[in-house]
Formats: sequence, structure tokens, C-alpha cells
Amino acid sequence: MHKSIKEILNNPILDSIITVKGWIRTKRSNGKISFVEINDGSNIKGIQAIINEEDHQFEKKELKKLTTGASISLTGILILSPAKGQTYEIKTTNFNIIGEADQETYLLQKKRHTFEFLREIPHLRIRTNTFGAVARIRNQISYKIHEYFQKNGFLYIHTPIITSNDGEGAGEIFRVSTLDFNNITNGKEVDFKDDFFGKQAFLTVTGQLHGEAYAMALSKIYTFGPTFRAENSNTTRHASEFWMIEPEMAFFTLEDNINLAENFLKYILKETLNNCNQDIEFFDNFIEKGLIKKIEDVINSNFEVITYTQAIKQLENATKTFEIKPYWGMDLQTEHERYLTEEIIKKPAIVIDYPKEFKAFYMKMNEDGKTVKGMDILVPRIGEIIGGSEREDNLDKLNKRIKELNLEIETLNWYLDLRRFGSTPHSGFGLGLERLIQYITGMANIRDVIPFPRTPKTLYF
Amino acid sequence: MHKSIKEILNNPILDSIITVKGWIRTKRSNGKISFVEINDGSNIKGIQAIINEEDHQFEKKELKKLTTGASISLTGILILSPAKGQTYEIKTTNFNIIGEADQETYLLQKKRHTFEFLREIPHLRIRTNTFGAVARIRNQISYKIHEYFQKNGFLYIHTPIITSNDGEGAGEIFRVSTLDFNNITNGKEVDFKDDFFGKQAFLTVTGQLHGEAYAMALSKIYTFGPTFRAENSNTTRHASEFWMIEPEMAFFTLEDNINLAENFLKYILKETLNNCNQDIEFFDNFIEKGLIKKIEDVINSNFEVITYTQAIKQLENATKTFEIKPYWGMDLQTEHERYLTEEIIKKPAIVIDYPKEFKAFYMKMNEDGKTVKGMDILVPRIGEIIGGSEREDNLDKLNKRIKELNLEIETLNWYLDLRRFGSTPHSGFGLGLERLIQYITGMANIRDVIPFPRTPKTLYF
Repeated sequence: MHKSIKEILNNPILDSIITVKGWIRTKRSNGKISFVEINDGSNIKGIQAIINEEDHQFEKKELKKLTTGASISLTGILILSPAKGQTYEIKTTNFNIIGEADQETYLLQKKRHTFEFLREIPHLRIRTNTFGAVARIRNQISYKIHEYFQKNGFLYIHTPIITSNDGEGAGEIFRVSTLDFNNITNGKEVDFKDDFFGKQAFLTVTGQLHGEAYAMALSKIYTFGPTFRAENSNTTRHASEFWMIEPEMAFFTLEDNINLAENFLKYILKETLNNCNQDIEFFDNFIEKGLIKKIEDVINSNFEVITYTQAIKQLENATKTFEIKPYWGMDLQTEHERYLTEEIIKKPAIVIDYPKEFKAFYMKMNEDGKTVKGMDILVPRIGEIIGGSEREDNLDKLNKRIKELNLEIETLNWYLDLRRFGSTPHSGFGLGLERLIQYITGMANIRDVIPFPRTPKTLYF
Repeated sequence: MHKSIKEILNNPILDSIITVKGWIRTKRSNGKISFVEINDGSNIKGIQAIINEEDHQFEKKELKKLTTGASISLTGILILSPAKGQTYEIKTTNFNIIGEADQETYLLQKKRHTFEFLREIPHLRIRTNTFGAVARIRNQISYKIHEYFQKNGFLYIHTPIITSNDGEGAGEIFRVSTLDFNNITNGKEVDFKDDFFGKQAFLTVTGQLHGEAYAMALSKIYTFGPTFRAENSNTTRHASEFWMIEPEMAFFTLEDNINLAENFLKYILKETLNNCNQDIEFFDNFIEKGLIKKIEDVINSNFEVITYTQAIKQLENATKTFEIKPYWGMDLQTEHERYLTEEIIKKPAIVIDYPKEFKAFYMKMNEDGKTVKGMDILVPRIGEIIGGSEREDNLDKLNKRIKELNLEIETLNWYLDLRRFGSTPHSGFGLGLERLIQYITGMANIRDVIPFPRTPKTLYF
């Protein structure tokens, strides 16, 4: 098997004969020598190959096929590059164009393209530097999330994607069905008994409730899977399909939860920074200046815990004029979150004890009867990145909240079993994978950190 | 933070004071001493605590709450157990029942339950030995899959769940929609322009095609995510929602693909056997006698490659009477696959070069024009466990197959771009996670290796 360019560059053996297989990113020629940049996706930096056009072994016909986008297998000697721009290069002894790329029709010439244009060709944009780097970082973050939880005794649980749970107010939902849409009603109400599952079925908005059931037997679990929102909103931070990580821990108080979340976040940031340094340097150079320092600052800071009530007071006293004036009882907006962490606390902030009104029914009630044991982690330049809580483990109190909020008690009866039998204090949090990738890459639009993004009225392949 | 029972038993410190938090699995009393078995899910074996009922510090009222299913925090001294059945036990100095479990209504008393009954309470069955062990093995396999690919330079890609691709004949599909089912047609044909994505949308049946697009830039990728089938079939091997692993490698021939698949499968089996030995012993004892030997045999064997044509000849010559008589051109049935690997080859077999008729359109055509470069790995006791192929990388040949099969060329145009621009030989395979878990645990029914299984007319929560 041939080595990847990353392997070759990580352990270069000068004057050895090597073979690379990849795609041509750029090619220039001075009439005598062709300079061909080959990339195989293992690395942001490809490797440059030098081809002596005057060497008779290279046919003119073949040299003409050296174009951007063509796939190539190339063999030569690894030497120190005499030119700037790269340390090593390949003195080519042999090459073979495997698949050509017609320059008239190939959409990805080496000129720059807008992200908007590239979104229309998600199957090809991965061949650019930016999207290759995003993919490598997405991979690294995903793996390190698994590694962190596995090292710490958590079990990975696949909570269901199709669910009869309608989301309990977490957002708009997609329906899943096999009914024939053109013969669905016959003038009557739809009878879901005829549908595939014999009842209504939806795409999940969270794995938390199912995850709690597993935590109530396995103690520490996490989910990591796709979740869905059918909200008709076009923003740079919302997609209809995204991946979420949701750890859930029996016997964890809110404080344990906070400590875990801080430790977890720092681990992921640190490992990604270390293992994807070239990719992150690329984003620091071309997408968000100061990116690396921003990440390092979070890694090196002690997150500060502040109650919602304290936070509101600080915001009320701030000199800044907000679009929405802060007051006790409001849900914090991104402008407030960012001001808190960037200007007031000047490092990551963990806001706890939110008014129950705008938090989910399952959050544990504080003794004041007004606030709940929620916690949001806010980081500079983005605001909320993690949201979690201690869960209400008392059956009566949970029942009361469900009634207050007019939720369907029948569909939650199984969930209440977890409080009826062997209930324990427990906590968990949720992290949107894409938001974390956006944070680490500086990419402004969530559509550019998902391989094939799904948003309202947009569905490529 | 308290230690898990696994941590305590892996590194026991005699005569130290320890605290365990978990759930009571069993409790018996001789009138003087209570023997309480506590499990926290970290281990199949819990830990036994001894409570001296005559000690006045333990209130009668509290002792009565020591029942199956209750959650408990218990502190005591770790001692060698004088009795059989366990090496260590805890001499209790203090305990606290956190959440009771009413013995009248709690469905999981210690008596045995059928798997059929337990399927109706997926949120509680995880509290049994069997389902705890399945969950730990599922976790281990999942993590080792990531570890294997990461060690070998593959990038993890999240291919989309919602897709406009209708599966290309891979099976029945679910539709995803936000249309109001009671006002969907108004007597006319449904106009999907009004639906959420402005077109028809489905749940994915495979990530392969999207994965190929990424392999054509990143070289080696893998997917690991949920896939769906809306087939109305009730078998022990089919679920409507299951997780699939699909690596895809540029520049890999069928032979490279075979070597990877064999290496990969052995790695997962070996690591799971080593790291989940207690759980697998449990399955060997109670679910499938000889399980460990079966797995070890696969790890220690060299898989044998055989062509489909050779396989059919061997089956035709076999003395066994099959339900369906083997002949060239048929798709192999499980009875044929099992006979091949168990009786003829007597170890794992890799069947290659299948007739094109019953294989997918994207498989690379052999020079005979009749067979394709597919490969299925068959293992004793189950039959096919991995299916893969070299992909057709030639645009004209691929186009021809698409036309022959009357597939919708418009929806595949993007996929053909991968052959138009920088095409390369490439290969990949698919592994159903649940089938692998069934193989490693011996669990007969796929419904019992998925946390919340989805099958026709069955959807719990």
C-alpha cells in the first residue's frame, strides 16, 4: 500500500523513492519544468512534484493531462526543495494520470470560489483547502469526544432517531411516514394506525430522555448522533440536521455536571489544537485572525460560575445599549451572553439557576420555587456553547411541572418510571457538534461545517 | 467523586473505606444479616454489601427499603468475602436509600423475564444483566471501530440522514415531511414544492454514495451512523433503524478492500473479546455455548477467498439438500452461505465476483461482462457479515449500468461527477453494527441489541 502524503511528510526519508496518489491541486510550467501540487486529503499541505518536460520518457500527450482536479499516481525521489514554499519535493521519475478533469467543465479551477457557490456542489467542495481542513477538524473533534468519554468510564449509547416523542416543546419536528401522500385521507382524518409504526412517528430533537433511562442503570452514558429541527429559520447557526453530544450521569449534581463540562470542553479544544495544528493555522490565517489565541485562552482559563440573577444585575448596570434591554425573567440573548463573557467576566462563564419559565420541564427546581438548576456555558465570540442541568428526580415535582406546562402526560409516563423506581440525582448537558466546529475553525456559517447541510428549501442529494 | 464498582474491583484496596452508588439487584436476609447486591452498570458483576440488621444504627424502617430496583449510596469497608460467589464484599457502616422501588408496581423483580416481555419496557430492561452486557459490548465495539479507522488514517464523515436520494433500489424507504397530513392534497397531486425542503425527502438507506464523494478528496474515509429500511418484514435480523459502518477508500482495489475488511474485523473481535471478557463469558454461559471459541476461531483463521462461480460449483456438489437448490445466477441464501463457511471451507470465506444481476449498479464490472467485483465476507453461524465491492470508476460503464437498470439518471448526476473529474479506482464495504453485536453476543434477535428498537408497528417512546 502506498503511503499518504501526511505519512511521508511526518517521517521524510531523503533520497528514497516514493509513490504518492492523489489529485492535482495546481500545476504551473515554465516551459521546461512542470510544478505539480498533489493533495490526497491526509494533510492540508500537499506535496510538490517536479517534472522535467524535456525528459523524453514523458509524453507530451500525458503532460497535457496534468490539470487541476485530475487524479494521479506519481513516483520519484524525495529531495529537499531548493525553492521557498515547501521543505520537500519529489523529483519525478514516473507518473500516471488515472482520471482526467476536463478544464472546460470542471467547476473547481484553482481560482477562488465563494462559500455560497460551493454550497451548491457539496460533493466537490471537499476538494478545496477550506473544506478539507473542516473535514479533518470535524473528524478530530468527533474522535476526541469519544476518547474523552471512554477514558472516563462513560458508555456510548445509540438513542433512537425515529421516536414517538414529539419533542416536548424543544422545537418544530419532522414527521416520518410511509403513507401514500396522494391517498392519505380519503376525506377523513388521517389514521396513523395505518402508518408504518401504527402511530405517529417523528425525527428526534434530543436523545436526552432516552439517555436518562440508560444512565439510570449504567450510571454514566453519552449519546453522539444526529438530531433534527424543522424550524423554518435561515440563520448561520441553525441547520435542520445536526449532530449532538449528550452525556447523562446518575448521581451527578449540578456542580459535578459543571466540572465535567469544563473539563470535557478543555480536553477537546486542547487535543484538536495539538493534532490539527496546520489546519487551525490555516483558519487563523484566512478565516479568523487570532483564532489560536482565542482557543488557548479558553483552555488556560478557569471558567467562572455566576447565577442568572447576578448576571442580569451586571447586565443592567452595563454601560452598553443592548438591542433588547436586560431584565430579570428574560431569556438571555446572544448579545447578552457575549457581553457577559467578553466584557464583564472576560473569560468563559457558566450561568446557573435560570428562571423556570424559559427552561425545559425536566430541570430540577431550586428551593426558591422560581429558578431551576440549569447551566449554560458561554464563551467569547459565540455565547452559549453548552447547555445542561441537573434533572428533576422527584416524581411529584416533575409531575407538577408537566401539568403546569400542559405537556402530554401519557407520552411521558415511561420517563416518569425513571423517578418511580430507583430515582437518583442526575445531570447532563448537550453540545452541538457543529457549533463547536464553528468555534474551533472560525467558520461563520453552519452550512460550511456539515458535509451535506440540510436547511429549509435546500437539499442537495 | 465516588468510584465505580468496576474501578473498585479492578484495583481493590483491602480494608479501605469505600462508597458505592448504584441500584440494588437482589437482597436476601437471614433475619440477622442482609446481603445486598449493588450494581452500577460499570461491570456485569456488582458488589455484595453485608448489613448487620442487629446493629442499632440501622433503622428498621430504612432496612425495609432495601429492595430490588432501589437506588442506594452505601459506605463500608472492603473485605475478602468469606462466602463463595464473590472475592470481595463490603462490610457496611452506613447506607442511604436514595430512590425507592415499590415492589408491588416495579416490573423488574428478580425473577426471570422473557425477552419478549422486556421489549415492551426498553427503558427498564437495561437494568438487567443481559441488557447491561449488551450495552457494554455495543459501546466497546463502537469505540474500537473508531479507534481502528483513526489509527489507520481514515477520516470519520457524517453523511446525511435526510436525503433526496431514493435509495436506488436498496430497499423501501421512509419519507420525511412537515406537510399537514390532513390537508395534504386538496384533491390534487401533492406538490412537494410546499414541503420543508421544497422537494421529496427520505431517510437514508446508505451513506456510501455521499461517502464516495468524500473519499475522492480525502482518500480514506468511513461513515458510522443510523440507516433506515421501511420494509414490512418481521425477522430476527432486520430492524427499521440500525447503525452502519461504511469505509470508502480511493485507490483501493478489490484485493486491498478484502485485506482491509479482514484485518478490521479481526481487530474488532480481538479487542472486544479482551476488553469485555466478563460480559462475553456471560453470553457464552447463558446465551450461546461455545461463543468464545467461535470468536477466537475467526480471529485465528486466514479468511479464504473463493469466487462465486467456484462457490456455486461446490454447493452443487454438496450432499446436503438445500431448501433452495443452488445454481449459477442465484443470489446466495443464508443456508448456502452458512454451509459454505461452516462445512465446505470450515472458516470465514470471502466470496467475490458475483453475477451483476443481483448486485448494486455501482459495482465494478469484470472483464467477462457478466460478473462484478463484489465481495461478501461469510462467517460460521451467521453467513454474510460484511458486503463490499470495488466501485465502477469508468464513467461510460457506469452510465451504461444506470440505463440498463432504469435508474433515475438526474438524481445521480452529482455522483457521476465523481467519475467525470479525477476518477480513481476505489472500494469500500458496509458492516451492520447490530449484526456484529449479535455475532459477538450470540443474541438471536436484533431487537435485543438495539437500545430502543424500531420495527413494523412497534415504536416505544
